[in-house]
Amino acid sequence: MITRKNFETKTLLANPQGFELVKRYIDTDLNRCFKVENLENNINLNYEESRAKFINRILGPKGNPKFDFLLDLHSTTANMGLTIILVNHHPFNLKIAAYLSSVEPDIKVYILMSPGVENSFINSICERGFAIEVGPIVQATLQADLFQKTERLVQRSLYFVEHFNQGKLDEINGDLVVYQHLKVVDYPRTKEGEIAVMVHPELQGRDYQKLSPGEPMFLTFDGKTISYQEETPVWPVFINEAAYYEKGIAMSLTNQKTITV
Amino acid sequence: MITRKNFETKTLLANPQGFELVKRYIDTDLNRCFKVENLENNINLNYEESRAKFINRILGPKGNPKFDFLLDLHSTTANMGLTIILVNHHPFNLKIAAYLSSVEPDIKVYILMSPGVENSFINSICERGFAIEVGPIVQATLQADLFQKTERLVQRSLYFVEHFNQGKLDEINGDLVVYQHLKVVDYPRTKEGEIAVMVHPELQGRDYQKLSPGEPMFLTFDGKTISYQEETPVWPVFINEAAYYEKGIAMSLTNQKTITV
Repeated sequence: MITRKNFETKTLLANPQGFELVKRYIDTDLNRCFKVENLENNINLNYEESRAKFINRILGPKGNPKFDFLLDLHSTTANMGLTIILVNHHPFNLKIAAYLSSVEPDIKVYILMSPGVENSFINSICERGFAIEVGPIVQATLQADLFQKTERLVQRSLYFVEHFNQGKLDEINGDLVVYQHLKVVDYPRTKEGEIAVMVHPELQGRDYQKLSPGEPMFLTFDGKTISYQEETPVWPVFINEAAYYEKGIAMSLTNQKTITV
Repeated sequence: MITRKNFETKTLLANPQGFELVKRYIDTDLNRCFKVENLENNINLNYEESRAKFINRILGPKGNPKFDFLLDLHSTTANMGLTIILVNHHPFNLKIAAYLSSVEPDIKVYILMSPGVENSFINSICERGFAIEVGPIVQATLQADLFQKTERLVQRSLYFVEHFNQGKLDEINGDLVVYQHLKVVDYPRTKEGEIAVMVHPELQGRDYQKLSPGEPMFLTFDGKTISYQEETPVWPVFINEAAYYEKGIAMSLTNQKTITV
């Protein structure tokens, strides 16, 4: 049940052809197609580029949308549990993140924005809203426990919006732990560009856990450990995400910090 | 290192085009293409059917192969750890299974044969040999710990063959726990054929664990439990394997038993 009394909820399957063919996408990652430049382009559009324009037409236009809040549902093969991904610091988003964290203490809040770089995610259409990233889930499978947790998180999000609209949630404030995106890390490669390592067993599955200088990061195929070499600790996420091999991303590094909402 | 002094080892990438495109297969599951009838067919072959004929030409012919031992490496998204899959009861296979179980106590031995039905796996080319099935691994990703365990199991298999050839392994005997294939189970479906359930959270990931009558098996999308209804316990494997959705297989049921080797 997604009906609430003081707002209307609509659903949209973002990539129906990908869904039909059981593929993340046909031509390109849909959730990187929402830059204004792409949305205004009319030439030689592939499937996802056309889809992004279509979505932008019915939900957007980007920056001036027909809706007030956009919830984008994703799964990942990484061990990220339930994550809220924010692409801006809008006070509403921080408030709903703080609320959801208070009622679901296991969720993580990942702030994924690069200053000065235009965001290309679907969430960039509408300033209020976020993505829910759920994992680990093998692509094209159902995982009942995470299905139910996601359902509950969506329900709680709708609850928040409903009560916010009634002016009942002004009291939400306090500290919120967030993971701020720093950068992505590729797999070390051979001269020919082939992946030369695996994620180290001691790092595999440890998304959101602190990685300190000198700790294992990768393992070569003949068993040599490659350690994390920088000077300050980081909190990796999207570790060994299947869809990111082709993007040259072994993991993303974040910085854990506490903000006041 | 796969070189041994008293035999020659050759490697073969069974499905190079699937590997190139990061797909389990192009047209059809290669490891179901090794029936004599398929191998003798010359008409309208798709990619994997052609590949099976090619493999049968260089390794086979089926039943009269150019090699004495065939090791087929697979990964699964199910939580099967390291499994040896036997497609017959050849004494050599039972002996190597017993040996490998004695040195790697965590491995499981799954006997996957249906009496009276011709086996369609690549292992049916050569009576000596087995498949190694490793999981859980997300398709198209590397998982370092399982990579290393698989490597060790291959090394131990080569060790066995080398010492067997020298007549040094006659002393292998004793009891061996095996999981004998009973049947496959599909997801309960709607009248329209759509999957109506998920694997129950209490069963998810519990490959090789006993499932008794009345215990949870599936969960509907609105949260109702469907229990295992038969009269005797079973030991499910390939639970929620991603590649088996399209085959209509939610899991395979086996019977645990102890045999004397």
